[in-house]
Amino acid sequence: MLRTHTCGELRLDHVNQEVTLAGWVQRVRNKGGLIWVDLRDRYGVTQLIFEEGSTDKALLEKAASLGREFVITATGVVIERASKNDKIQTGAIEVKAANLEVLNPAKVPPFIIEDDTDGGDELRMKYRYLDLRRNVVREKLQLRHRMMQETRKYMDAADFIEVETPVLIKSTPEGARDFVVPSRVNPGEFYALPQSPQTFKQLLMVSGFDRYFQIVKCFRDEDLRADRQPEFTQIDCEMSFVSQEDILNTFEGLTKHLFREVKGIELEEVKRMTYEDAMKFYGNDKPDLRFDMKFVELTNVAQGKGFSIFDVAELVVGICAKGAGEYTRKQIDEITEWVKRPQIGAKGLVYVKCNADGSFKSSVDKFYNQEDLSAWAKLAGAEAGDLLLILSGEAKTTRKQLSELRLKMGEDLGLRDRNVFKPLWVVDFPLLEWDEETQRFHAMHHPFTSPKAEDIPMLETDPGLVRANAYDLVINGVEIGGGSIRIHDRATQQLMFRHLGFTEEEAQKQFGFLMEAFEYGAPPHGGIAFGFDRLCAIFGGSDSIRDYIAFPKNNSGRDVMIDSPSTIAEEQLQELSIKVALK
Amino acid sequence: MLRTHTCGELRLDHVNQEVTLAGWVQRVRNKGGLIWVDLRDRYGVTQLIFEEGSTDKALLEKAASLGREFVITATGVVIERASKNDKIQTGAIEVKAANLEVLNPAKVPPFIIEDDTDGGDELRMKYRYLDLRRNVVREKLQLRHRMMQETRKYMDAADFIEVETPVLIKSTPEGARDFVVPSRVNPGEFYALPQSPQTFKQLLMVSGFDRYFQIVKCFRDEDLRADRQPEFTQIDCEMSFVSQEDILNTFEGLTKHLFREVKGIELEEVKRMTYEDAMKFYGNDKPDLRFDMKFVELTNVAQGKGFSIFDVAELVVGICAKGAGEYTRKQIDEITEWVKRPQIGAKGLVYVKCNADGSFKSSVDKFYNQEDLSAWAKLAGAEAGDLLLILSGEAKTTRKQLSELRLKMGEDLGLRDRNVFKPLWVVDFPLLEWDEETQRFHAMHHPFTSPKAEDIPMLETDPGLVRANAYDLVINGVEIGGGSIRIHDRATQQLMFRHLGFTEEEAQKQFGFLMEAFEYGAPPHGGIAFGFDRLCAIFGGSDSIRDYIAFPKNNSGRDVMIDSPSTIAEEQLQELSIKVALK
Repeated sequence: MLRTHTCGELRLDHVNQEVTLAGWVQRVRNKGGLIWVDLRDRYGVTQLIFEEGSTDKALLEKAASLGREFVITATGVVIERASKNDKIQTGAIEVKAANLEVLNPAKVPPFIIEDDTDGGDELRMKYRYLDLRRNVVREKLQLRHRMMQETRKYMDAADFIEVETPVLIKSTPEGARDFVVPSRVNPGEFYALPQSPQTFKQLLMVSGFDRYFQIVKCFRDEDLRADRQPEFTQIDCEMSFVSQEDILNTFEGLTKHLFREVKGIELEEVKRMTYEDAMKFYGNDKPDLRFDMKFVELTNVAQGKGFSIFDVAELVVGICAKGAGEYTRKQIDEITEWVKRPQIGAKGLVYVKCNADGSFKSSVDKFYNQEDLSAWAKLAGAEAGDLLLILSGEAKTTRKQLSELRLKMGEDLGLRDRNVFKPLWVVDFPLLEWDEETQRFHAMHHPFTSPKAEDIPMLETDPGLVRANAYDLVINGVEIGGGSIRIHDRATQQLMFRHLGFTEEEAQKQFGFLMEAFEYGAPPHGGIAFGFDRLCAIFGGSDSIRDYIAFPKNNSGRDVMIDSPSTIAEEQLQELSIKVALK
Repeated sequence: MLRTHTCGELRLDHVNQEVTLAGWVQRVRNKGGLIWVDLRDRYGVTQLIFEEGSTDKALLEKAASLGREFVITATGVVIERASKNDKIQTGAIEVKAANLEVLNPAKVPPFIIEDDTDGGDELRMKYRYLDLRRNVVREKLQLRHRMMQETRKYMDAADFIEVETPVLIKSTPEGARDFVVPSRVNPGEFYALPQSPQTFKQLLMVSGFDRYFQIVKCFRDEDLRADRQPEFTQIDCEMSFVSQEDILNTFEGLTKHLFREVKGIELEEVKRMTYEDAMKFYGNDKPDLRFDMKFVELTNVAQGKGFSIFDVAELVVGICAKGAGEYTRKQIDEITEWVKRPQIGAKGLVYVKCNADGSFKSSVDKFYNQEDLSAWAKLAGAEAGDLLLILSGEAKTTRKQLSELRLKMGEDLGLRDRNVFKPLWVVDFPLLEWDEETQRFHAMHHPFTSPKAEDIPMLETDPGLVRANAYDLVINGVEIGGGSIRIHDRATQQLMFRHLGFTEEEAQKQFGFLMEAFEYGAPPHGGIAFGFDRLCAIFGGSDSIRDYIAFPKNNSGRDVMIDSPSTIAEEQLQELSIKVALK
């Protein structure tokens, strides 16, 4: 090694030892015949000192000429510092340098390489390899590494086997659009990149693997919205001979393990909530439980008093914002404008202030007396100093709007602390959802999800009410992952495809291999997939690895990791038997 | 869980406990009012027993009707067996079944699911999900899992950070042909799939990551020869502030760790050999050191005695096959025919038998007397009972031919034991190799490999002689991986590109981002990549994961994981702005 120690390693114990360090010049200070150089590497910062008189003159000049981000090695003796620096772990010592070698000089970096930098987003994107030298950025990737290590440790200890499934696969037409990969060896033919290893892992269960997992890249050729990436990472799992409860317990265990080992937090027990309750009480299948603010239905008590907006509404529903009773008229007007924005789409907002003296002030005082308002407050558990906010209209839309308002009020009232973690299992999702555009049912999770046995008869009569053995893990309002108990027999799988509008021939052509496998002894099985990027983001790490690593990035926001046809040789396209249309 | 224990878990300690097991029916035996069912899962086999009289009649009938590979659960009490089976871990007990449920029936499997199966290769390929139920096959994937776990454990303990580099990248034109991936979001444009994360990992070193690793899928759109797959897995690593010796030591450590933890073998120290010596003594840059049989050059002693074939040869070189002196004339003729096959291409073979009485018998007795042959034998360290085999001709070709013959003789003499492991570092590879076809030099490793400092002047005068800081790990004649100390400054990298025939503009266009990064403080760095598939194969595990998992496989040998354009929607190709040429 070009060093004996790292820049984060030396302590008072090392005093009088001769050491060699290597790293980047963070800072050079020159004062009264003394030169200090802060030397940085991944592990920390150590101060080098060069002293006029006791240091060779040529060496002094060399030290003085060092620029920021020069790569050097220096040899010297560890000495105790006169004035110690408590802020860094090596702050008790410094190295009296006797030798110095520049391994590589550096141009002046385009921004300062420190936690607080003067570099804007675009500049830091362009020079991502320099941005990654900053501790705050590098630590996000280190956290990701730690999450991967701890996930694998937990899964291995629980007898899961990691199997790498193929990346170049046959296309299965479901969900989002596949990326296709033309093959030179088979001109005119294509591989597809997997959106998930779903059918592979089910076949592994048929093969008796019992417990499978994989931390795996998946791909979607979709428009790149803010939270979508063409490639993303999943913790993908499958288990045999289990009920839903076994899967929830196993992956609650994984979640707790990660919080304990990576963040040093003892996570509370993961609550359970049905999809129905989540929609009823939070208007959302991924409620943020860092704060309560449950929906209160007021339809019955609010109708029939002459307020026509409420009277014609399918649903009148409110939330109680604790401690917001002191909001000014202006603040309430702002909230009203906020819910009326097109993104939310409410027509208006009714409020009831619970005054300190026990009286109520509302925007509908004309229609409701103090007794009426008191009844609402009682239903909502509102007390003096609280604020009721009420929306009305078509039930589904109104719940969605109120869900947004609830999140906004939680944010405004400081109830969404990034350092508080409230996990939740949402269970009993519907099996199917109606798609207005195509006028047919789609699988809400995917077509391999099993319906609840007791609901199967409803498939014929009321498909929209059939519940699935499907579940999501939600933390702080973010869907971390989801899964289901799968169908494991041919007859049920065929029934499912029929209800999804497949002809028997289509189902056989596309998924015949899976249904055939079910006939050779498929065990009951189920699984789950965690969005690893989202999980890391919740932990404060990097969300999309692609954003962090796909350097160099240009200024236009375009994905620079893509090639225009001009850089793909014409000859190569010919070999692939494909032609690119002119744009 | 649908079970209280696995089928590999029960011992005498469990006697009298009520247990529930789940798994596949391996075998049903019915004899004298008793029915035994062998129940199998990933963890083992447990015997269930149903007894006439003490067992309910309906249950007996149900048990008798079970077919092979039915999936069942059974509940009962653990009892001690009268006649124990030492061959299986649960052989001391059996479960007296009181209940039995068929979770899924199974068609009769197309071949027997046992270590020794009656299924041919094609049938087992087609029903890979059934083949994987066989212990011998499943264990190959389990070994792969263990290799991955132990690799990560070792790398993490050595402070390496695993970073997932992107899969959809910009094409860098080097080495084999890239797969390209057309993008819907940017019609007419393409991503490429990485052949290795080489430039990413070098940029991570520039970013100060210090130690990076990744177990990563890589891709090559190449003709699928027997040992090539379109996707393969690497253990990819890079380190900063290191010399070659540090890298060899670190990855020798990894190799020993894997042998110790996965195979329970204390691997011997990894020998070092220069490329020059490997070629001189074994005719091969990946010598199999499970046996010695070094090349012995006889040019000087064999020429000038009137044997014109030797006299005109650039090189006369032989091996001493210990103990092969008893080979019959017929056996030696067979060897001669073998080296004359077009795959080897030798014109003939000279042998010298060292007889028990100290005399010699050779195919060139006309030209060489006993004293001559004795001198050869002495040079070759041959003793009574040994056989010298000698080839001659153009030096490079002859060494290659003799290398093949050496391996064949090692095989014939039983010297290539699969359970013996002889690791070797081959070092000091040439930097460049001459390509006859293109009439220019290519980088032997890759264009980022650094030349040995002392050899740089020869770049101008004798490029073919310049040695690189490059190394390969070889085990038992298989190249497990290779790497190099990289160039880390712009000037040397530019010099290298120039010698590889790049114009300055081409180099700048293709690798400008890397050379620019080198100007902002790049540390000295180097790395290595292990072929994970080959490493697993050496350990007796699965080699290509694709072969094991890419089911369903058809009978034609064609890659069935590929789609013909007919299954890719025309609309999708339009969106991609590509057209498929008619075949």
